[in-house]
Parts: sequence; structure tokens; C-alpha cells
Amino acid sequence: MKGYFITFEGIEACGKTTQVNLLYEYLINNEKLAIKTREPGGTDTGLEIRKILLHTKDDYIPPIAELLLYEADRNIHINNLIKPNLEKGYYVVSDRYTDSTLAYQHYGRGLDLDLVISLNNLASEKMKPDITFLLDIPVEVSLRRLKDKDRIENENVDFHNRVRKGFLEIAEKNKDRVIIIDGSLEVEEIHKKILQILKEKNII
Amino acid sequence: MKGYFITFEGIEACGKTTQVNLLYEYLINNEKLAIKTREPGGTDTGLEIRKILLHTKDDYIPPIAELLLYEADRNIHINNLIKPNLEKGYYVVSDRYTDSTLAYQHYGRGLDLDLVISLNNLASEKMKPDITFLLDIPVEVSLRRLKDKDRIENENVDFHNRVRKGFLEIAEKNKDRVIIIDGSLEVEEIHKKILQILKEKNII
Repeated sequence: MKGYFITFEGIEACGKTTQVNLLYEYLINNEKLAIKTREPGGTDTGLEIRKILLHTKDDYIPPIAELLLYEADRNIHINNLIKPNLEKGYYVVSDRYTDSTLAYQHYGRGLDLDLVISLNNLASEKMKPDITFLLDIPVEVSLRRLKDKDRIENENVDFHNRVRKGFLEIAEKNKDRVIIIDGSLEVEEIHKKILQILKEKNII
Repeated sequence: MKGYFITFEGIEACGKTTQVNLLYEYLINNEKLAIKTREPGGTDTGLEIRKILLHTKDDYIPPIAELLLYEADRNIHINNLIKPNLEKGYYVVSDRYTDSTLAYQHYGRGLDLDLVISLNNLASEKMKPDITFLLDIPVEVSLRRLKDKDRIENENVDFHNRVRKGFLEIAEKNKDRVIIIDGSLEVEEIHKKILQILKEKNII
């Protein structure tokens, strides 16, 4: 692939979206070809799936169905947006990707590890990010930052603690790819760290 | 389970929906507890998934994403509607179920057999129908009957021929469960045959 695939991960309200926006603006201002995107909901079809995942109230969404919907969103995302843009040489900056599914569906929901990994591989077509920034914050900070909660954010503290622990384990197992950043630092300080790391790795 | 789970399968315009309606009316008129349903779209959430599957035009829906969406719909359907009603002793009559996924996604789209079977098992939680009626018609009859085609119906003749052949193979391999009925017979004649078989098997 000619472009670079950069993902941001972390629990709710860790500051991912802000950092995705700042990095995207930096890239555009420096005349790079870049797009920013997110999971779920990086495509029009994905937006419909996102609505189901985050805002369904009438039906019970079992953990298996949740996993299948995230992976469907991902497979559409990869084929319609991520791959075509990487092939054209764009920076693709995504707010969440496969690590989130592992953290939420395996560590959070307790679904089988091999099942989540095999569906991640199936849906992502084994496309890995060049680099992943994990913005780590304590769950208490996350919950304090959240106001109007969606279906996932509404889960209990234990759930979010398991997810946070999951992300840290994923980072530990993928040291080459995943950089942990303290998400309780100032926004500008985090942004500078991210740029510094991307420069050191000759990504920007 | 206290109830009976009856599914109808076949290619587009084979007459499934008409027969589901006739059987449902028969059950209700004979004071049986019964619901009729369908896949995709048996629940409110499933209806949203159905819209994505049949009417998306903006994005390309890859075969893997299509499979994942059908299975997500099924897992929500099983947990919110099929199982609870079977537990209450209802007849659950469904227009399509796992055989359709095998016929369309494996025989039609060419996805790996083991993948489709394993996702069928995952999503259906291995809940099998008590009996399945396969309404078989030639593809030419199907295409002649169809007017405004949706995304799946719009596939070419070869695709629908593979799907038909798939259904017939599934029936061959599951003789205990799947009954093949000539879908080009008169509507009332088919309905009578179905009632007769259900009576012979002590299901009604």
C-alpha cells in the first residue's frame, strides 16, 4: 500500500476523536493527501449500522449480533474507503479499528478470543494499521467526561475496566505497532507527542 | 422447546411468502398460537438490517459483509422472537432461515462452505427448524414473476441457478427435515400438500 493507515484506540471519552481531528488538520495543512474516518460508521452504510449498534432500544442486541455488526461495518469500510484510499497514497486516520473489537467484545463482553480474532481477520481482510495510538485514561476520568451516554457507554464500571485492561494487554502484545499515550495530558501536549512519534518513524 | 419451528425456503418469487401467510392463517383459524416472521427483517432492528441488505446503492456490499449482516439479523431474530415464542409453545413460521444463507452465500456467492456453516451455527445458536418446505421453481419462472427487483434479485441467471441447485443439495442432505414441493403448482394445491405433510408428521 502506498499510503499510511493510522488508528486511534481507547475507552470512551479518552480523547481519540479530538486527536484524530488534530492529526488530520495537521496533515491537510502540510499538503498531505489524507482522510479521517471512524468505526463504526465510516461509510454511509456503516452509519446505518452505527445507529443500530449505539441507539437501538426496542430489541435486545446479543453480544454475538453486536460482534457480527461491527465486523460487517468493518468489511464495508475496508473495501469502500480504507483500501481504495491507501492504494491512492492517502493517509487514512481512523477513530477505532480491530483493537476496539478485541477490547470490547472479548475483554468487555467475554466472547471467545479465537472467535473475535478470526472474525477480525475475516472482516479486515488482515489489513493491519501501520501504527496505532492507544490513549489511555482511568475509567473514572472517562465516566466523568461523558454526558449523554449511548448504549455502549451506558455499561457498568466493571465493563469499562475490563475494556481498558484489554487495550493495555493488546498494546503489550503488539509493541511494534501500538503506542500507549497518557490520555489525561493536555490536548496539545498529546498532539505534539503523536507528531513527534510519527516523525521518528518516518511516517510523516 | 414447546412450540414448532417451521421454515420456508426457495429462490426469489417461488411462492414462500404466500404459503407462509396461508399456513399462518390456517393455524390462527384453528385456534393455534402462531406467529409468522421472516429473514432478514423479523425484528425492528432486523428491518434496518434488511434495508441495508436489499436496498443499499451507495456502497459496495462485499460478500463477507453481506454474510455478517444476515447472521447478525438472525442472532437478533433468534433471541428476540424465535426462541421466546417457541418456549411459550407457539408455532413460529419463518420465511427463510439458515438454508437460505447456505444457498445464497455459499452456492450463490461462492463463500467457503465451512465459513458459512460455522457462522450459521454461531448466529442461530444451533436452533434447527422442526420442518422446512423448499418451494422449488425453475429460475426462468422466478425471473418472469419478478417485477421491481431489489439488489439480490438483480443478480444474473447463473447466480440464481447456483442458488437453486444449492437449495436442492441442502434438501438432499437433510431429507429428515426438508420437504421439496413443486412451486409451479397452484397456490391452493401447494397449501393442501403442506397441511397434509404437517398432519402426517403430527405437527398440526
